[in-house]
Amino acid sequence: MMPKAPVFLMAPLALFAHDLMPVPAKLQPGAGRLRIDRNFAFVQLTGYREPRLEAAAARLVEHVARKTGIPMAPAIGKHAPEAPLIVYCDHASAPVQTAQEDESYRLTVTPMGARLDAPNPLGVLHGMETFLQLINLDASGFGVPAVMIEDHPRFPWRGLMLDVARHWFPLADVKRTLDGMAAVKLNVFHWHLSENQGFRIESQRFPKLQELGSDGEYYTQDQVRDAIAYARERGIRVIPEFDMPGHTTAWFVGYPELASAAPPAPGPYQIERQWGIFDPAMDPTREETYQFLDAFIGEMAALFPDEYFHIGGDEVNGKQWDANPSIQAFMRAHGIKGNEELQAYFTRRVEAIVEKHGKKMIGWDEILSKDMPHNILVQSWRGQKALADAARQGVGGILSNGYYLDLGYSAAHHYAVDPLGEGAADLSEEQKRLVLGGEACMWSEFVTPELLDTRVWPRMAAIAERFWSTQNVTDAADMYHRLGAVSRDLEWLGLAHVSEYEKMLARLAGAGPVAPVRTLADVVEPVKDYAREAARPYDRFSPLNRLIDAARPDSETVRRFAALVDHRQTAGDIQEIREYLTLWRDNHARLAPILASSALLAEDAELSKDLSAIAEAGLEALDGKHDPAWIAEKTALLDRAKQPKAELLLSVEPAIRKLVEAAR
Amino acid sequence: MMPKAPVFLMAPLALFAHDLMPVPAKLQPGAGRLRIDRNFAFVQLTGYREPRLEAAAARLVEHVARKTGIPMAPAIGKHAPEAPLIVYCDHASAPVQTAQEDESYRLTVTPMGARLDAPNPLGVLHGMETFLQLINLDASGFGVPAVMIEDHPRFPWRGLMLDVARHWFPLADVKRTLDGMAAVKLNVFHWHLSENQGFRIESQRFPKLQELGSDGEYYTQDQVRDAIAYARERGIRVIPEFDMPGHTTAWFVGYPELASAAPPAPGPYQIERQWGIFDPAMDPTREETYQFLDAFIGEMAALFPDEYFHIGGDEVNGKQWDANPSIQAFMRAHGIKGNEELQAYFTRRVEAIVEKHGKKMIGWDEILSKDMPHNILVQSWRGQKALADAARQGVGGILSNGYYLDLGYSAAHHYAVDPLGEGAADLSEEQKRLVLGGEACMWSEFVTPELLDTRVWPRMAAIAERFWSTQNVTDAADMYHRLGAVSRDLEWLGLAHVSEYEKMLARLAGAGPVAPVRTLADVVEPVKDYAREAARPYDRFSPLNRLIDAARPDSETVRRFAALVDHRQTAGDIQEIREYLTLWRDNHARLAPILASSALLAEDAELSKDLSAIAEAGLEALDGKHDPAWIAEKTALLDRAKQPKAELLLSVEPAIRKLVEAAR
Repeated sequence: MMPKAPVFLMAPLALFAHDLMPVPAKLQPGAGRLRIDRNFAFVQLTGYREPRLEAAAARLVEHVARKTGIPMAPAIGKHAPEAPLIVYCDHASAPVQTAQEDESYRLTVTPMGARLDAPNPLGVLHGMETFLQLINLDASGFGVPAVMIEDHPRFPWRGLMLDVARHWFPLADVKRTLDGMAAVKLNVFHWHLSENQGFRIESQRFPKLQELGSDGEYYTQDQVRDAIAYARERGIRVIPEFDMPGHTTAWFVGYPELASAAPPAPGPYQIERQWGIFDPAMDPTREETYQFLDAFIGEMAALFPDEYFHIGGDEVNGKQWDANPSIQAFMRAHGIKGNEELQAYFTRRVEAIVEKHGKKMIGWDEILSKDMPHNILVQSWRGQKALADAARQGVGGILSNGYYLDLGYSAAHHYAVDPLGEGAADLSEEQKRLVLGGEACMWSEFVTPELLDTRVWPRMAAIAERFWSTQNVTDAADMYHRLGAVSRDLEWLGLAHVSEYEKMLARLAGAGPVAPVRTLADVVEPVKDYAREAARPYDRFSPLNRLIDAARPDSETVRRFAALVDHRQTAGDIQEIREYLTLWRDNHARLAPILASSALLAEDAELSKDLSAIAEAGLEALDGKHDPAWIAEKTALLDRAKQPKAELLLSVEPAIRKLVEAAR
Repeated sequence: MMPKAPVFLMAPLALFAHDLMPVPAKLQPGAGRLRIDRNFAFVQLTGYREPRLEAAAARLVEHVARKTGIPMAPAIGKHAPEAPLIVYCDHASAPVQTAQEDESYRLTVTPMGARLDAPNPLGVLHGMETFLQLINLDASGFGVPAVMIEDHPRFPWRGLMLDVARHWFPLADVKRTLDGMAAVKLNVFHWHLSENQGFRIESQRFPKLQELGSDGEYYTQDQVRDAIAYARERGIRVIPEFDMPGHTTAWFVGYPELASAAPPAPGPYQIERQWGIFDPAMDPTREETYQFLDAFIGEMAALFPDEYFHIGGDEVNGKQWDANPSIQAFMRAHGIKGNEELQAYFTRRVEAIVEKHGKKMIGWDEILSKDMPHNILVQSWRGQKALADAARQGVGGILSNGYYLDLGYSAAHHYAVDPLGEGAADLSEEQKRLVLGGEACMWSEFVTPELLDTRVWPRMAAIAERFWSTQNVTDAADMYHRLGAVSRDLEWLGLAHVSEYEKMLARLAGAGPVAPVRTLADVVEPVKDYAREAARPYDRFSPLNRLIDAARPDSETVRRFAALVDHRQTAGDIQEIREYLTLWRDNHARLAPILASSALLAEDAELSKDLSAIAEAGLEALDGKHDPAWIAEKTALLDRAKQPKAELLLSVEPAIRKLVEAAR
C-alpha cells in the first residue's frame, strides 16, 4: 500500500527559523519560497464547501493584504491566474462544535503553490492561520518558505475566560478578542457573564436581572447570537458562565427573593461596587430558587448552543447561610453537615436542571463532590493536583491555575505551567485524557476596554502554545522571539496592545515629552499576584490610568538587558549595557519636571530616583572591582530599590544586582 | 440696560497657554481650575432639547472618560451631584443644515462649574469640542482652566473632500473621518463618489453603475443614509459629488451609450486601473444623456438632503468629442465654438436638472461660464484669483487650491494659504462674503484605508483652523505646538495616524529591529506636488507599503532639529544637536543589515547613506571653522543629498547645510 503523503522526517526546528506560534506538531522544511503577490486573491476552495469556508478564505486574503500592504486583485478578465493556495476540506464539522473534533490539518508550501488539507473546516481555519504566520519579508519580497506541516492540537480544550461583569466590555471588544484567539488557535471563549458587580446579558424571562443589575451595560440576546456566530466562523466555542450560588449580588437587585439573607426581608440589594468576596448567596433550601433557575437556565441553554454550561460555584463564604434560621433548620432536617455539603446539595440540584436542558455542567473546583455524575467538567483554579483528584474519580477537567492573566506575571511564567505537570504528572494515560486542556482567565478588577488588549496580548499567545504544542516545546527564549512576531501580526488584526500602551504613556506625560516616561515604563512591572488589591482600596470606579496600568508584565527591554548582562563578552555587549545604564541614570533628571506637573505620575518619583541610583551603581560596577564597603552600600541600595513602590517593581534590578556582585 | 454677559477684554493669548485648535474668536482667562472627576457624567442639558443633543452629551462624557482614563459614574442613588457642565441651547437649527447657520457658542469655565450657551445645537457641538480640548493634566489632576470663550467661525464652509473612488474606503473609514472633522469644527464632508476608477454608490434606478463599475466596492443607500445621519449628529453636512462629463469611465462600463466615443459602438469600457486624465466623457449632444442624468440626479437628490449637489466638471480633455463626427455636427448646427463652449452647454443643461430637483449646483472651476445663474458655487482647484473672478461675477466660491492633502506638503504650507489671500485680497467686503470658505482635498491615488488617517491627520486640523479662526492667527510655531496636542486628542477618538505609522515601520523592518527604520523615517518627507506620479508608473494595484508611504509630510524631529540649529546658543543646544547628528551618522551601519533583508527598504539605501554622510559633515561643522575646500566638498555632498531618492526627500538637509555654512 502506498503511503498517502510523503514520509515526514522530523527536522530540528532550529534549522528552519519560523515565527509560528503555536509551534506545529510536525514541520519539514522544503527548498525555495512561494512568492506572495496580488494574485493571492485567487485562493481556491475544493472538496466540502460551506459559507464559513468562503468567509475564511476572504478573511485570509484580507489579512494577507493587511500584513503585506499588497492590494489583492479582484478577478479581471476571463482567465484567473493559477491558485496560489488550494484548500481541500473533506467534510463538515459537527453542527455545534464540540471538544471531540478533529482539528488537524496538513499544509504544504512549495515555490509553485501551497496546499492545505483538512478533514473538516476547523483544520482549514487553523491551517490558514499558520499560512498567514508563515508569510515574511526578505530581500526578494513577501513570501512563504517552502515547508510541509502536519499539525494537530495536544489538548482539545484551549480557552480564554473573559470576565465582562466586574468591568464591562462592549461587543466590539469581545469580537476583537475572538479575532486574536483564532489567530493562535484557541477554541473556547468562556464568557463570565454575571457577578456581584453586574449581570451582563438580557433575560427575557427575568428582565429585572439586566434592567436592575447592569447599569444598562449588558448584551442583548441578538448581540449574543452575533458573538456566537462570529466565534463559530473562527472555530471557537462559546460557553456562558452564570456563577452561583455566590457571586450573585447583581441578580438580587432585581430578584431579592433568591438570596439567603435572614427574614424579615432579603434585600434591598445594590449592585456591588467593591472588589472581593461578598456574603450574598442564593438560598439553596427554597424550591422557588430551583424553579427560577430551571426557567433561567432553560432560556440561556436555548441561546447558547454549546454542550457545556458553566455554573461557576466558587467562593461561597456561607455567612448568609449561617445567619438564616430557616436554612439552618433545613440543614438539620436533611442531615446536611456544614456549608460545603449544602453547596454540594445545591450543585446536584442545579446539575439536574442543566442536564434536563440538554447540557453538561462545568464549574470551578468547588462543584466536585463525591456523588456528582461523571459527565461534569471541573475548571480548576486550584491546580493540577485538583484535576488529578477529579481524574482519579473519573471526572474531566481543565486547568486555569497558573493562567490568570490579571496577576501580572510574565509570559514565561505562564508558559512554564503545564496542565499535565505538577500534581497531574503521575496520572495514568487514561486518566490524563480526562484533562482536556486549559483556559487562561482575564478577571477584570483592573481591566477596562482601554486596557483589555494590553492585558491579554501578547501573553495569551504563549499560553495558547502551551495548550496546542507538544509538551516538550518549552524554550522560553525561543517563545519570546516568536511572541514578538505574533504580537506584530495581532496588531494587523486590529488588536491594540501596542498602540494603547503608547497612548497611556502620552496621557501620563500630560503636556510633557513622552520619552522619559517610556524609559521608566519600559523597566517596571506591576506587582504580582494579589499584591495590588492589598496595596490600597480599589473599586469599580477607580481610574485605571496610572503607570501600573500601563506597565507591562513582560518587558522586552528588561529581557534584552538581562540577556546582555548574563552573556556579556564582547566590547559591544559592554557598550550596549553602558548605554542602557546611562539612559536610566540620566532619566530622573529628564522625568523630574514631568513628575512635578502630572498628578498621575507624581507617585512614581521614588521609583524614578531608584532607577537612576541603581543605574549609576551599575555603571560604577562596569568600571572595575570595588571594595566590600562599596558592595555593601550598593547592595543596600538595590535592596531598597527592590521594594514595590506605587504598586510597581523595578524589574531591571536583578540584572543590575548581578553587575554589582560581579564587581566584588 | 445691563450687559447680558461680563465684558470681555481681549487678553494676549500667550498669557493663557492652551491647546485649542482652532483658536477661538475671543478668549478671556479666568482664575483657578475646574476639576474633572467621575461626576462629569452629570452634564446637564437645558433649554431646547433634541436627541442629537442627548447623544452629543453622552459622547462628550465618553470622550472625557477616554482622554482622562477616569470612569464616569452612572447615576447612583437619588441625589445626583451638581452638574459640572450646564448646557443651554436656545432653539433648533435648520432641519437640513445649511451654510447660513449660526455656529457660535459661549463657554464659561469657573472652578465651580462650566456653562455652555449656544443659539442652536451646532454651537453646542462646537463648544463641547472646545471643552474637551481644554481638559489637561497638571499636578492637581485633570481639569479645565477657568476661562471665558466667545467663539464663532470666520467662514461658514469648512470642508474635507474624500475621494473614495480611486481607492475605496469602507463606511468605517468615513465615520472615523467624520469623528476627526467634528473634533476640529469642520462642517462639510464632500464625498467624491464617482471616477474613472470606480462608481461607489448604489443606484436603484441604474444598478449597472455599481454592479459593473465598482468591483463590488460601493456604499448601499442604507449606508449612505447612515453616514449622513452620523454626520448630522456631529454638525457636518454631506455633499455628494458625481463628476461629469469627464472622469466617468466607470459609468460607461454599465452604460456605454452615455459616452462620446465615435460610432459604430461606444465601448465596451473597462474600469480604469491607471491614474491620470482619460479621454472618455459623456456625450453632451444626445438628449438621452440628459434623460439619464435627470433620473439619476433625481434619485441622488432625494437621498442626499443637502441643498448643494456637486457635479464635478473638471479636466475634460475633449478627445472623444473631437473624434465624434455627430458631436462635431451638433456643434456646427448650434454654433458652439470649441470644447469649452460645449462643456458650458452641458453644464447649463445639468444645472437646470439639478435645480429642477431642488438643489444648487456646485462644481470645480470649469463650471463657471458667463451666462451661468448666480446661485451656483465654484470650488476652486485653480486658486484665489479664480474665486475673485467668480465673486466679481456675483458667484460664490470655496477654495481648495493650496489644500490638497495628497501633495505631500507640510501643515505649515497649507496653514499659510488663506481663502481671501493672494488674488482675492483686494475684493470688496461684499465680494469677500461670496467666498464661503474652503475644503481640503484628499485625492486617493496614493491613499488606502491603512494610510488614510496618516495622510489626513493631523495636518487637516491646521487647515480647519485656517477656516475657523480669525485671519491674523498665523503663527506656525504656535500652530505646531497645538497640533501636537490635537493629534493626541484625535488618537483618543480612534484615529490611527500614530499607530499606523508605527505598524508600517514594523512591516518595513521585516524581522529586523524597527528603531533604525524609524530613525530614517523620521527625517524624510515624500516628494511634493505631482513628483511622485512622475517618478514611476503607478496604478490601482500598486502596493503602498514603502517608506514613502510611511513618511510624514511633517516631521516633528526635523522641526525640532531645525529650531535648535536656528537658535543654538547654550551648550545644551549644541549637545542636543550633536546627539541628533551622532544618531544619524551611526544609523546607516545599523540599518544596513535591514536594508539587505527587506525588499521594501532596499531602495532607500542611498538615502540612508546620505543621511550618515551629511550628519558626519554636520558634526565636523560643530567642531569649528573649516577651509574653503572643506566647505566646497560638503556643499557638493549636501547638493547630492538634496536630490530626491526613492521618491523621498531628506528633510533634515537644509538645517545641516546651515551648520556647514556657519563653519565657513
